[in-house]
Amino acid sequence: MSSCNVSYDEVLQSFFEVAKRAGTTILNATNSQTSSSTTYLDTKKNSADLVTETDKAVEKLISTTLLSKYPTFKFMGEETYKPGTPLDDSPTFIVDPIDGTTNFVHGHPYVSIALGFALEQKSVVGLVFNPYTGIMYYATKGGGAWKKVLEPTGDGDWKLRNERVKLPIGEPSAFAGLDGTMVAVEWGSDRSGSNWQTKVNTWNRLGRSKDEGGAMVHSARCLGSAALNLCAVAEGHVDIYWEGGCWAWDVCAGWIILTEAGGIMADGNPPSDGNERWEIPITHRKYLAVRAAPGGQKETVKEFWGHIEGWMEYEH
Amino acid sequence: MSSCNVSYDEVLQSFFEVAKRAGTTILNATNSQTSSSTTYLDTKKNSADLVTETDKAVEKLISTTLLSKYPTFKFMGEETYKPGTPLDDSPTFIVDPIDGTTNFVHGHPYVSIALGFALEQKSVVGLVFNPYTGIMYYATKGGGAWKKVLEPTGDGDWKLRNERVKLPIGEPSAFAGLDGTMVAVEWGSDRSGSNWQTKVNTWNRLGRSKDEGGAMVHSARCLGSAALNLCAVAEGHVDIYWEGGCWAWDVCAGWIILTEAGGIMADGNPPSDGNERWEIPITHRKYLAVRAAPGGQKETVKEFWGHIEGWMEYEH
Repeated sequence: MSSCNVSYDEVLQSFFEVAKRAGTTILNATNSQTSSSTTYLDTKKNSADLVTETDKAVEKLISTTLLSKYPTFKFMGEETYKPGTPLDDSPTFIVDPIDGTTNFVHGHPYVSIALGFALEQKSVVGLVFNPYTGIMYYATKGGGAWKKVLEPTGDGDWKLRNERVKLPIGEPSAFAGLDGTMVAVEWGSDRSGSNWQTKVNTWNRLGRSKDEGGAMVHSARCLGSAALNLCAVAEGHVDIYWEGGCWAWDVCAGWIILTEAGGIMADGNPPSDGNERWEIPITHRKYLAVRAAPGGQKETVKEFWGHIEGWMEYEH
Repeated sequence: MSSCNVSYDEVLQSFFEVAKRAGTTILNATNSQTSSSTTYLDTKKNSADLVTETDKAVEKLISTTLLSKYPTFKFMGEETYKPGTPLDDSPTFIVDPIDGTTNFVHGHPYVSIALGFALEQKSVVGLVFNPYTGIMYYATKGGGAWKKVLEPTGDGDWKLRNERVKLPIGEPSAFAGLDGTMVAVEWGSDRSGSNWQTKVNTWNRLGRSKDEGGAMVHSARCLGSAALNLCAVAEGHVDIYWEGGCWAWDVCAGWIILTEAGGIMADGNPPSDGNERWEIPITHRKYLAVRAAPGGQKETVKEFWGHIEGWMEYEH
C-alpha cells in the first residue's frame, strides 16, 4: 500500500482491463472500412505532429474508466493536456492513448497504449500494450517488470498467448564502450533550431567511424514509439534510448518498466553546466535510458553525454 | 515457365520449405543457453559489420538444400560472397541467411531470412521470413505479392496462423508531396567519407522544418533489415526506403515483392550527371524504393532526389 492508500496491483489490474478494451478499439479502427479513424484530422503544432479520431476516442475511454474507479485522482493525457499544467504530488494517471501516432496513421504496427501512474511525481505503475503484436509490458514499484503476449479472441476480448517472462530477457552483459551498443533515437516533430541540430550533430558523432572522430555505435534504431523504446531497453534488446522532446505521457509507463528491469534513466542533456543529472522529473522532456547491466551503466551514460553536440530546450 | 525451364512456383515452394527450416534454426539459436550462436564472432570490415555462427550455419543449410535440388544454378550468399564476383545472366539464388544481423546479435526481433532468385539479372522470385514474428512475405514475377503469418508448432515445424493477404494492404493513396511520407533510412556499416556525409546531410535536409529549408517528412524509421524494409514499403506501411551500401542479397528477395505489390525501385543516387536511373541492377548498392500509389510515384522519387546532398559510391 502506498501513501495514498491504493494498491499498485489493483491499479495494474485496472490498467490491464482498460488496455484490452483500448486495444480492441484500435484494432477495430484499423480494420474499419472508413479511413477516418486512422486518417489524421488535426496537426497539433506542425505537419509531423499528428492526431486522429482514434487517439481522442481511446483517451476518452481510458480517462472515463480510470476516473470512475479512482475519482479523486488526477489525469494527464496527451490529447487533453493543457500546456503549462504542472504535474504535482497527487496520485496521477499519465496516459498516452496511442504512442506512435505517426506509425498508426501509416499502418506501421509499432504502436502502443501507454498507461502510467505517478505518485509524488514518480512513476510507480506502468503498462504498455501493442495491440497489433499482442505484446504487453508491465511493472509495479518493487514488483518487477514483466512481458506477456495476448491475442484477440475475435469477439472483442483477449486471451493469453504466451505466459509472462521477467525482464530483462536473458542475462545482461556488462557495457564495454559505446561502440558495442545499439541506440534508439527519435527525431520527433520539433525540427528546427538547436533542438534539431543537436540531434543531427549528435547522431553524426555517434554513428561516424572512429577514424573520423565518431563513436561508431553498432547502429541507430528509429522505431517511432517512446513507450515501446523504453520497453525494448527494459528487455535489453536496445542498449540505449536517447530522446528530446517527448512528454510525460510518452515515458511515465515505460519508466517504471525500465527501472524495475534494472535500467536507469538519466538526463538527455549533457552536464554542460557541470551538473550531472541522474534523477530527472517525469516532465523533463530530455531523457537517456540505459539497459540493465552488471557493470558500466553510469560510464555508458557519461560516454554518451560526451558525444552530445549541443543542448536541447523544450517548453512545458 | 521461364527461359531456364524452371517454374517460379516450384522455386517459391522450395523457398517456403527451406525458410521454415532456417527459421527453426534461428529460433533454436536464440533459445539455446550458450550465447555463442548469437554472439558475433567476426567483423567483416569494421566493428559494426557483424557475423555470427548462426549466419554461417543458416546460409550452409539454404545453399545445400537449394543446390541439391537445382544443381546447375548459381548461388550468391552474404556469408560466402567473394568480392568482385559479378552477377551474370545465369539462374542465381541470391540469399541473405540473416538480414538484420545487428538486430539478431542484440535480440531485437526485426530479423529476416531473405531468399531471392534472379534470372537474367532480374529478381523473379522472393520470400522474406521473420521467424520471431512468423510473418512471411513472398512473390513471383506475374503472380502478385503476398503476406501470411506462421507460428511454430513446437516440434521444429510451422503451421499457418493467418491466411495470406495480397499486398499492398488496403487501398493506397496518391502521393501529395514528401512532407506526408514516412521514410526508412539505414546507416549501414560504412560510416566515413562522402557515403556517411551524404546520409547525414540528406537526413538533415529531409527531416528539417520547411522554415529552415527542409522537406519536413513525417518521420524517419531505421529498422535494421533491408529485406523487411522493402516488404514494409510493399505493404504500404512505409512510403519510401532509401539505402546506400547494402548488397544484392539484401534486396533481391524484397525487390520482386515490392514491384509485384505495385512499388518501384529507382536509383539511390540523384541524377547529378543528368541521367535519371529508373532501372538499376540488383547489385547497384544504392536504392530508392517507393510504395504503390495511384499517382505521384515518379514525382516522389524526383522530389526525394532533389533533397539528396552528396553522392554515394560503393565497391562491388
